[in-house]
Amino acid sequence: MADSDIDAEPGTVYLVGSGPGDPELLTVKAKRLLETADVVLHDKLPGPEIIDQLPEARREDVGKRAGGERTPQSEINERLVELASEGKSVVRLKGGDSFVFGRGGEEAEYLAAHEIPFEVVPAVTSAIAAPAVAGIPVTHRDHASSVSFVTGHEDPTKEESAVDWDALAATGGTIVVLMGVGRLPDYTNALCEAGMAPETPVALIERGTWPGQQVATGTLETIVDVRDEEGISPPAVTVIGDVAGTRESIVDFLQTEYGSAAENGGREA
Amino acid sequence: MADSDIDAEPGTVYLVGSGPGDPELLTVKAKRLLETADVVLHDKLPGPEIIDQLPEARREDVGKRAGGERTPQSEINERLVELASEGKSVVRLKGGDSFVFGRGGEEAEYLAAHEIPFEVVPAVTSAIAAPAVAGIPVTHRDHASSVSFVTGHEDPTKEESAVDWDALAATGGTIVVLMGVGRLPDYTNALCEAGMAPETPVALIERGTWPGQQVATGTLETIVDVRDEEGISPPAVTVIGDVAGTRESIVDFLQTEYGSAAENGGREA
Repeated sequence: MADSDIDAEPGTVYLVGSGPGDPELLTVKAKRLLETADVVLHDKLPGPEIIDQLPEARREDVGKRAGGERTPQSEINERLVELASEGKSVVRLKGGDSFVFGRGGEEAEYLAAHEIPFEVVPAVTSAIAAPAVAGIPVTHRDHASSVSFVTGHEDPTKEESAVDWDALAATGGTIVVLMGVGRLPDYTNALCEAGMAPETPVALIERGTWPGQQVATGTLETIVDVRDEEGISPPAVTVIGDVAGTRESIVDFLQTEYGSAAENGGREA
Repeated sequence: MADSDIDAEPGTVYLVGSGPGDPELLTVKAKRLLETADVVLHDKLPGPEIIDQLPEARREDVGKRAGGERTPQSEINERLVELASEGKSVVRLKGGDSFVFGRGGEEAEYLAAHEIPFEVVPAVTSAIAAPAVAGIPVTHRDHASSVSFVTGHEDPTKEESAVDWDALAATGGTIVVLMGVGRLPDYTNALCEAGMAPETPVALIERGTWPGQQVATGTLETIVDVRDEEGISPPAVTVIGDVAGTRESIVDFLQTEYGSAAENGGREA
């Protein structure tokens, strides 16, 4: 049943997540496919440590075009079909997991519509891993029996916002916001207005598992100031909920490869 | 910064997730630690393919005791401290990710309280991976801008249920239920009563990425009958939301190592 020893197949597209950034958090399968595929289409989000390991002759950066603007998704879709139709084995590499805010679903639909065989290779999502290496479990028997993931790209004040912050607050579970540094004031405000306690713990993890990881902690009320004082900038993950308070009680014994846990923002809360 | 070439350290506990079950979905780091740790404490949830690869002399099954009942968490905690205090390098291996309904948070707290150094090694969670390999992205621009994870262990009819199904329904996002085969009738009912459309797509993925993976699809209204007809049994992941409908449109071109995607329940919906 398993084809574990077989390399990337010609004419096939592999939708592969790179994980949060540490090359050791690639899956064994992702690593094998990166080593054997004819072409790897990527942007900057997998992080420098993973991108720099790919031989230049086999990689194609589809993140930004010459002018600096982002390559439209339609162009990436067409390129995937083009390369696979030429008989190439193609890895489409995304930061984190392709199917968690990674547009992997759209790519899969486009490939199927063009009759290109494809495989999905799941990955470690930054939404769980960045908090984890900072000492924050997204669920915990005593604190959270559910966890919700959203992106912070959207404007929570606009009428037609697809994210229902009131409902998220009402779940009583942990809320993890990806790409949510810029709009932090908007959604912390929205959550307070939805009835969450202003003293609810919040943590920001910048570049989780990358060189130079940074962690900052506060509350719904203080975290915007903490962000500004600590100079937290994208890419970062925001964790909102009692679980964010766990870090403080365990950080002294938490070992990490990504800088000293205790120095790395353990005490600001 | 990276200690990528260093083996498991003496006197240290590694809280390691095994991923969904396919040994190729272990992270590079988890694989290295499993190969070098003095002892691996595990239960059955990582799945046969991963457990059987561990040399018997270095593994300790803490899932069930001789009498058949589950080993209490307190006993596992004490054993971790005991082994690390003897100077052993110890891997605590959990199915999926230790920090997603895996009690990793409690283990971390216990280790810190006993001054045992520990490291957290994030993993691929079954909550994302099982749907993904079945062709279901848990988020999608057109269908879901949030995703929530809960467990189905709890009785949703009891007053003090920690999971707020009304709030989860109100988020409008995808809902993924782990370990939710048994209580499927209870929470599909609770979600319909909370106002979700009875025709909302639902998928069940049994033993995702294991040998013998099975997929069954239906709606909030039909899925209990589908479960019974298809004989879906634990362990399984339930995906509720429009994204569960994606599978049908892509399954013909979805390659999988885990049995033929199309045969494997692609057409029941």
